[in-house]
Amino acid sequence: MPTNLHEEETIKQLANFWANNLPFNNLIGLKVSKFDSKTSEIRFLWQDKLMGNPLQKTLHGGVTASALDFAGGVVVAANMIEQLEHKTTEAIQKSLSCLGTIDLRTDYLRPGRGEEFIATAHIIRSGNKVAVARMELHNEKGDHIAFGTGTYLVG
Amino acid sequence: MPTNLHEEETIKQLANFWANNLPFNNLIGLKVSKFDSKTSEIRFLWQDKLMGNPLQKTLHGGVTASALDFAGGVVVAANMIEQLEHKTTEAIQKSLSCLGTIDLRTDYLRPGRGEEFIATAHIIRSGNKVAVARMELHNEKGDHIAFGTGTYLVG
Amino acid sequence: MPTNLHEEETIKQLANFWANNLPFNNLIGLKVSKFDSKTSEIRFLWQDKLMGNPLQKTLHGGVTASALDFAGGVVVAANMIEQLEHKTTEAIQKSLSCLGTIDLRTDYLRPGRGEEFIATAHIIRSGNKVAVARMELHNEKGDHIAFGTGTYLVG
Amino acid sequence: MPTNLHEEETIKQLANFWANNLPFNNLIGLKVSKFDSKTSEIRFLWQDKLMGNPLQKTLHGGVTASALDFAGGVVVAANMIEQLEHKTTEAIQKSLSCLGTIDLRTDYLRPGRGEEFIATAHIIRSGNKVAVARMELHNEKGDHIAFGTGTYLVG
Repeated sequence: MPTNLHEEETIKQLANFWANNLPFNNLIGLKVSKFDSKTSEIRFLWQDKLMGNPLQKTLHGGVTASALDFAGGVVVAANMIEQLEHKTTEAIQKSLSCLGTIDLRTDYLRPGRGEEFIATAHIIRSGNKVAVARMELHNEKGDHIAFGTGTYLVG
Repeated sequence: MPTNLHEEETIKQLANFWANNLPFNNLIGLKVSKFDSKTSEIRFLWQDKLMGNPLQKTLHGGVTASALDFAGGVVVAANMIEQLEHKTTEAIQKSLSCLGTIDLRTDYLRPGRGEEFIATAHIIRSGNKVAVARMELHNEKGDHIAFGTGTYLVG
Repeated sequence: MPTNLHEEETIKQLANFWANNLPFNNLIGLKVSKFDSKTSEIRFLWQDKLMGNPLQKTLHGGVTASALDFAGGVVVAANMIEQLEHKTTEAIQKSLSCLGTIDLRTDYLRPGRGEEFIATAHIIRSGNKVAVARMELHNEKGDHIAFGTGTYLVG
Repeated sequence: MPTNLHEEETIKQLANFWANNLPFNNLIGLKVSKFDSKTSEIRFLWQDKLMGNPLQKTLHGGVTASALDFAGGVVVAANMIEQLEHKTTEAIQKSLSCLGTIDLRTDYLRPGRGEEFIATAHIIRSGNKVAVARMELHNEKGDHIAFGTGTYLVG
């Protein structure tokens, strides 16, 4: 089915774009591991350069915020694309160029310690002007490190 | 006056600590340019690696959040130290080891474009358990890029 | 000048509408005391029924949130109307029927004690889809009771 | 077992206190329907006086914020009490007199329409200085109206 082929193609292109073209995400090591129009998952490994305070050997709060913001942005982007009537590369690029974070709240629950970190997001409000996502950060042992809520400008 | 000397010494030590010992701040290039017990100022230069989306050539939202969180943390730390009866190195270190961000809200007002960025913070609530700071990010032309509010665990 | 006459008329109608037609605001006693397209001011008097906990004899946190949300909504509404090309009653009503709060953050700084309370708001982001306002609550002595930030859907 | 009897007694007293002694909650009609140390549930009925804008016939955003703040406060209070070594009336009152909301974020997802509203809360961070709860508001049909996050000062 051509439509599905296109969608698969689209998804591959998006995943590729997110993997290779975002300098600050690359600096931190954020990788999109899963996404659909409702949820997303981002993973990254501990690196010493991500430390906030070396006395505590924990993630900088800004790393946590960056990962949550990106996870929210990915699911919002996928949701925007799903709603496009014609999923051409041009329509997708035009749509994504409007996407921006309006506000982001991060709740830090536990010190950011671990070997790998997993940020997940799901859509809680999906509109034609604004979308809202809720996010969580866990480490590889399942310790819950942070919650986030992001409001995004779309379309 | 010994007390003042000690305080000056303390401030130098703190500024030094903040300048040299915080890996993720160094990665981004955040530098404490001013602080006292009520306000703080952090500066950093544009670098391509801080870009979120290269199509827009703007700061990643996580960089903005990192700078605001750090500016808030610096003023809260200075405020905690001012309230210490004995400003010994031990007392200061003990005090700072309790400092942590509880939650952070960032409001993105304009695309993060510029050559230099200035994050400022001031204390809006100062207690013996919790402190709250409000922050702003501007570029070198005075464009107002973001607002933030951070709640910090102290003491 | 007809346009200015119309604007004055519009402003009177708006102030009237806000004063008389909003049941929950009336229940609390919120009154719009000033507004233009950049700032607004809401006032209300202490009443025992506004108490959260009678042991502390302070405003319920929800009263504070209600006043801040309304102050933000008023300035956002005034800002929307200013941007309308034709300020007819129909255009204004259509415009206002789209206005809604997307999210609201309230920072409680001091116990809500006083005889009169003044909520002020100013616009920090003004767009054709989303507007953001910052708010403050003081009592009649100038004690600063709360800060707020609201993101509103417009247009 | 005396301890359990005491706890049952405590819980009855608390529920009683919350039902009868909080003026603004009574004005809105908020009733605690369930609580333990991890979760709480608050219910209230639609009343015309709770309307924000009569053109839309929906809850005022401040009513939603009030219900979410109260649901969060109830679960945080129950959690504080569970951690008390001696659950005497004096210890409980002393403990509760310290409880206060530091900050509250409300995300409005859908217009607040319905006959009955149910606010639920669960603890996401439980400490000896600060607790954090996440809240939701649904109507009697299960429509999800709002999300909230509250940070509370405890102990």
